[in-house]
Amino acid sequence: MTKTGLGILLALPMLATSAYAYRTASPNGAVVASFNLENGVPTYSVDYKGSKVILPSRMGFQLAATDDLTDGFSVIGVDSCSFSETWHPVWGENSDICNNYNEFVAKLRQDKTGRRMDVRFRVYDDGVGFRYEFPQEEPFNFFILKDERTEFAMPGDLTAWWIPGDYDTQEYEYNESRLSQIREIYPKAVAVNLNQKHPFSPTGVQTSLQMKTDDGIYINLHEAALVNYSCMHLNLDDNNFVFTSWLTPDADGNKGYLQTPCKSPWRTVMVSDDARDMLASNLILNLNEPCKYADTSWIQPVKYVGVWWEMIGHGKPWAYTFDVPSVDLDRTDYTKVKPNGLHPANNANVMRYIDFAAEHGFDQVLVEGWNIGWEDCTGVKKDYMFDFVTPYPDFDIAMLSDYARSKGVRLMMHHETSSSVRNYERHMQAAYDLMDKYGYNAVKSGYVANIIPAGEHHFGQWMNNHYLYAVTEAAKHKIMVNAHEAVRPTGLCRTYPNMIGNESARGTEFEAFGGNTPTHTCVLPFTRLQGGPMDYTPGIFENDLSKNNPNNHSHVNTTICRQLALYVTMYSPLQMAADVPEVYDRYMDAFQFIKDVAVDWDKSIYLEAEPARYITAARKAKGKDEWYVGGITGYEGRKTDVKLDFLDPGRTYEATIYADAPDAHYLTNPQAYRITRRKVNSKTSLKMSIAPGGGFAISIKPVK
Amino acid sequence: MTKTGLGILLALPMLATSAYAYRTASPNGAVVASFNLENGVPTYSVDYKGSKVILPSRMGFQLAATDDLTDGFSVIGVDSCSFSETWHPVWGENSDICNNYNEFVAKLRQDKTGRRMDVRFRVYDDGVGFRYEFPQEEPFNFFILKDERTEFAMPGDLTAWWIPGDYDTQEYEYNESRLSQIREIYPKAVAVNLNQKHPFSPTGVQTSLQMKTDDGIYINLHEAALVNYSCMHLNLDDNNFVFTSWLTPDADGNKGYLQTPCKSPWRTVMVSDDARDMLASNLILNLNEPCKYADTSWIQPVKYVGVWWEMIGHGKPWAYTFDVPSVDLDRTDYTKVKPNGLHPANNANVMRYIDFAAEHGFDQVLVEGWNIGWEDCTGVKKDYMFDFVTPYPDFDIAMLSDYARSKGVRLMMHHETSSSVRNYERHMQAAYDLMDKYGYNAVKSGYVANIIPAGEHHFGQWMNNHYLYAVTEAAKHKIMVNAHEAVRPTGLCRTYPNMIGNESARGTEFEAFGGNTPTHTCVLPFTRLQGGPMDYTPGIFENDLSKNNPNNHSHVNTTICRQLALYVTMYSPLQMAADVPEVYDRYMDAFQFIKDVAVDWDKSIYLEAEPARYITAARKAKGKDEWYVGGITGYEGRKTDVKLDFLDPGRTYEATIYADAPDAHYLTNPQAYRITRRKVNSKTSLKMSIAPGGGFAISIKPVK
Repeated sequence: MTKTGLGILLALPMLATSAYAYRTASPNGAVVASFNLENGVPTYSVDYKGSKVILPSRMGFQLAATDDLTDGFSVIGVDSCSFSETWHPVWGENSDICNNYNEFVAKLRQDKTGRRMDVRFRVYDDGVGFRYEFPQEEPFNFFILKDERTEFAMPGDLTAWWIPGDYDTQEYEYNESRLSQIREIYPKAVAVNLNQKHPFSPTGVQTSLQMKTDDGIYINLHEAALVNYSCMHLNLDDNNFVFTSWLTPDADGNKGYLQTPCKSPWRTVMVSDDARDMLASNLILNLNEPCKYADTSWIQPVKYVGVWWEMIGHGKPWAYTFDVPSVDLDRTDYTKVKPNGLHPANNANVMRYIDFAAEHGFDQVLVEGWNIGWEDCTGVKKDYMFDFVTPYPDFDIAMLSDYARSKGVRLMMHHETSSSVRNYERHMQAAYDLMDKYGYNAVKSGYVANIIPAGEHHFGQWMNNHYLYAVTEAAKHKIMVNAHEAVRPTGLCRTYPNMIGNESARGTEFEAFGGNTPTHTCVLPFTRLQGGPMDYTPGIFENDLSKNNPNNHSHVNTTICRQLALYVTMYSPLQMAADVPEVYDRYMDAFQFIKDVAVDWDKSIYLEAEPARYITAARKAKGKDEWYVGGITGYEGRKTDVKLDFLDPGRTYEATIYADAPDAHYLTNPQAYRITRRKVNSKTSLKMSIAPGGGFAISIKPVK
Repeated sequence: MTKTGLGILLALPMLATSAYAYRTASPNGAVVASFNLENGVPTYSVDYKGSKVILPSRMGFQLAATDDLTDGFSVIGVDSCSFSETWHPVWGENSDICNNYNEFVAKLRQDKTGRRMDVRFRVYDDGVGFRYEFPQEEPFNFFILKDERTEFAMPGDLTAWWIPGDYDTQEYEYNESRLSQIREIYPKAVAVNLNQKHPFSPTGVQTSLQMKTDDGIYINLHEAALVNYSCMHLNLDDNNFVFTSWLTPDADGNKGYLQTPCKSPWRTVMVSDDARDMLASNLILNLNEPCKYADTSWIQPVKYVGVWWEMIGHGKPWAYTFDVPSVDLDRTDYTKVKPNGLHPANNANVMRYIDFAAEHGFDQVLVEGWNIGWEDCTGVKKDYMFDFVTPYPDFDIAMLSDYARSKGVRLMMHHETSSSVRNYERHMQAAYDLMDKYGYNAVKSGYVANIIPAGEHHFGQWMNNHYLYAVTEAAKHKIMVNAHEAVRPTGLCRTYPNMIGNESARGTEFEAFGGNTPTHTCVLPFTRLQGGPMDYTPGIFENDLSKNNPNNHSHVNTTICRQLALYVTMYSPLQMAADVPEVYDRYMDAFQFIKDVAVDWDKSIYLEAEPARYITAARKAKGKDEWYVGGITGYEGRKTDVKLDFLDPGRTYEATIYADAPDAHYLTNPQAYRITRRKVNSKTSLKMSIAPGGGFAISIKPVK
């Protein structure tokens, strides 16, 4: 890391003033953040290449009904500096990340209360981050947020790709509409069957929120470094197109318990006139703290298969028996119940997955349903639902972990908490100890159902504290964590890189719960993926779920080639091949791409992008001379030229091209593909034809 | 244990019937419990020697607005049996406890739903316990209680000794009134300054509730074996004098999450025409399960002194420094702050207490304020307030525990949780490990302030689960637990005898917060102590708190002799001498009684008792030939003859009598006492004169 920061203290005309203005431009001048204090009221705005991106917007907090931190301020000092460094993530889309910004801090004091509240801006060429900082200055020690009052005044009736704001789930389908249409669409948007659901306002939306102006400027609102604070949603004043932050409350309706010195997460505004910059931006990561672990050698990207789609897609049970009306972990004797004979997390089946993983070069085998307690539905508000350490009788953890080791693969742990959070924490050390004992180094955790105790929400401060606790405790065991249903990430994987994945959005599982739209994965990289990787679990090759489960009439709304493309377009250091081995056996030629594709990268280039329409990405495998290209489209078929000018000039490569067949279609003919090989170089342009709901994947290796 | 139980299955006239009646008498016939089912509605009633104690009262539960478990039942079977055993508590008022009852179970089915709900009655000579049992019978597996609908229809406008029902505190003063007067008195009763307070109804009261009929029948309502359920309060219909159970809710307003098979705590009705029987009853203990620990050798009664009254009574700080505006446990460097110089939990002072304890034969020395974090008030809703393992710089835990050991005493641990429950559980194992390392075997824990997370209450199911978890985890370390501000006990100390004490009522500390009334300790044995011992911390000899803290004008409302008497009248295996050594040095002759008095007993006899008026108890020290007698009165002075007919006939003993001086008075002359010695035998009757707010104490040892 090269730190070239320069601190400059600007002298103010007066010691304290209630009127003040300051503009900070990004290093290349494209982005300008302005801070204003007028009559004691702080506001900010953002411009991009001379266009208004965020109109003057108020800042601050509501502390109680008649007590706010939104006005009555004086500026008592300012700081500014420039900063540039290149840092190297443990894993990522690029091995080098440039962090280059100009910074400005306005030091504010609320005169009537003496409270201090500073606002810090970092202005990048692709956007702005700002946050609130509360110095420890008496008498402002402990305070409670009724809400945050940060506004984002949008420059008109923008097009947005949004999901409803919700305290407990992010598993909605995206909606594309004008801001003015949100209220109208909202009732339908929330009228979906989700495990836990708590929407709060007919104009409430979640971040990351991707928008676009009629002039073709892309604006994205999100947050970075969400630590010891509640998750921010946005509530729209749809007369004026002004969003206001809306934090996640606790049972008392309080939205944050803070102690000075402290700081809010960063509020982020990414902006560009090129949609590809939205995907390529490292702004969220850059705003997070550097890695806190001295040793990161134990953190490795993971490609895995698992005992999972058999349950999700094929309707098999997590549970071992149907013989008990409910389970008492202290009393139920599983050795005496009748097995249901369907439970896939059994020795023979897990060995089959281990064999498959070993044969095809996968690192790990996830096994869900290995531990006792699954007979009870996760929605029953049962406190002691799992102990996280006791296998079912048909899962011989010692034998299976030995067998996996002998084959050069690992088992991946699964901890469904059923959102009984205290119970999970009570068993967490024993659970991690068990993983140590049997050589597990990664856990997929889950937070299905409403939080126990009642009143807490998945995205509140108390739970956010828990998710990070689970990650930092895991780090003491050199364990990587992939939490599902947890709060959506905000770049914390930079600081805690054993946070190797998250779900926190509508994943592939919903292809088995009625299906995802073909646009869904064309939106996710613009929104959910801004904060960190998603364990989307692509790789489903069999679209007709009724073949394995007559009761399931869901159709997987993608072509096989699109499934391949997702390994490139949906960046993650954790990638699953989610379908079952016997399906891959039928399509081994296509499966080869999943076997080949890297999960860690030296370089990533977004060749084309438009929200909900198309994304094409090219990535160079880390430490290798190989490139992988993926392209997807939405409902509409598409033709595109993929220019390979990212290849080393003068060298010859062999490209293996996995393309939708001419008659492919995500609904009617999803399994039609063609695989071709050809020599390519940096001057090659590949003419690709993508089916509706389709995609393509290309692996490129140098000719030896 | 001799089990002489006899199970009898009574044949019913029909297989299932919606009309049914059954009466069960106690072994001596004095108490009769009746169960009735009429038109599918279950009711019960209780008679005592032919008088109505509980009029026909409904039973059952509300599950949802339109779903109840109160009617539509049929009796599908009955069971009855008689049971008698004598068991031996690990510690207690008596070394032998007789558990003798007749039992009746009505097996009910709600016809429209198929749900099973059985009601089990145990009828003792001193009262009745009944509970609900839910067999595991599909589809009734998991259910949520909106409330319990158990009625207690009282036979008139009884006199009651009550405190307001409250979800978070029991630290109220008792009120004496007719049931009809509760509503009128209630506003004043709740208008007191308590740390956490959450009353819920103007006729809501807590249990144990002591009442008395105009005919001189004493009736006490409480519960036994409160496990995985929320604490029961009672809400009065003051037109009809019918109490209905009112459980403690969670943030959703739900009052219980249950899974079949399960059972409610016992609802208890103690009854006698002799007030002494209320105090002597073992009904609550008998209704609890036998001890669950195979080895109990590590559980020992404890007499202790401690660094405590210096803070409570003298105004010294728990905190080490005044030099920080607030504490961050990860960042605050206590080695660099300025000590306040007042902090009593310092090496020199603790050594002084250790010396004092060793010299006077005390087992342990409690030290509050030993660990970092106390600079922040417990009311600030700070999640990570304490780590429970890091001492202040002036508390050398290794040196002090060595020093204590060298003197034959132990340090007693203190864990104030500030009600940040998850934080306590996160650190619990490390905290218990630290205790193991330094030879602590008892912890006083505290739950000051509102529960974190918000929405949970001190007496709800989630917290009750926590308190028991703390006790059972402690048992794994052979640690005894004395939790303050936890739910009031319900006899669980029989099952988990390392639950050696609780506060759960207004303790001696309130003598320093404005004072307790002289009647208070004449009520507590009838109410709070029914469920288990209280760490009341008597022994305050200096009534004028302004002597040590000019800002504190509280007066301790008892005479010195009454303080001595409390060691006998307030049974506890955990007894503190709460005043400071320098005060005891001034009254060493009176202090001798505290040194002598036992904390474990072979036999206890209540010689006289009337709620809020007087209590006289005699107890024989466990395994010794010594008796201790204590007597207290209320506001009024009193003369009484103490007949020593409990002594072995024909033997001569020496009695040391600690009596209020003739001019003693709790307000004007509290420190006036006389100590006399005389020979006594079983025919002796001692004429005792008790000052207003006074008491007496007698130690009786055989003449050798």
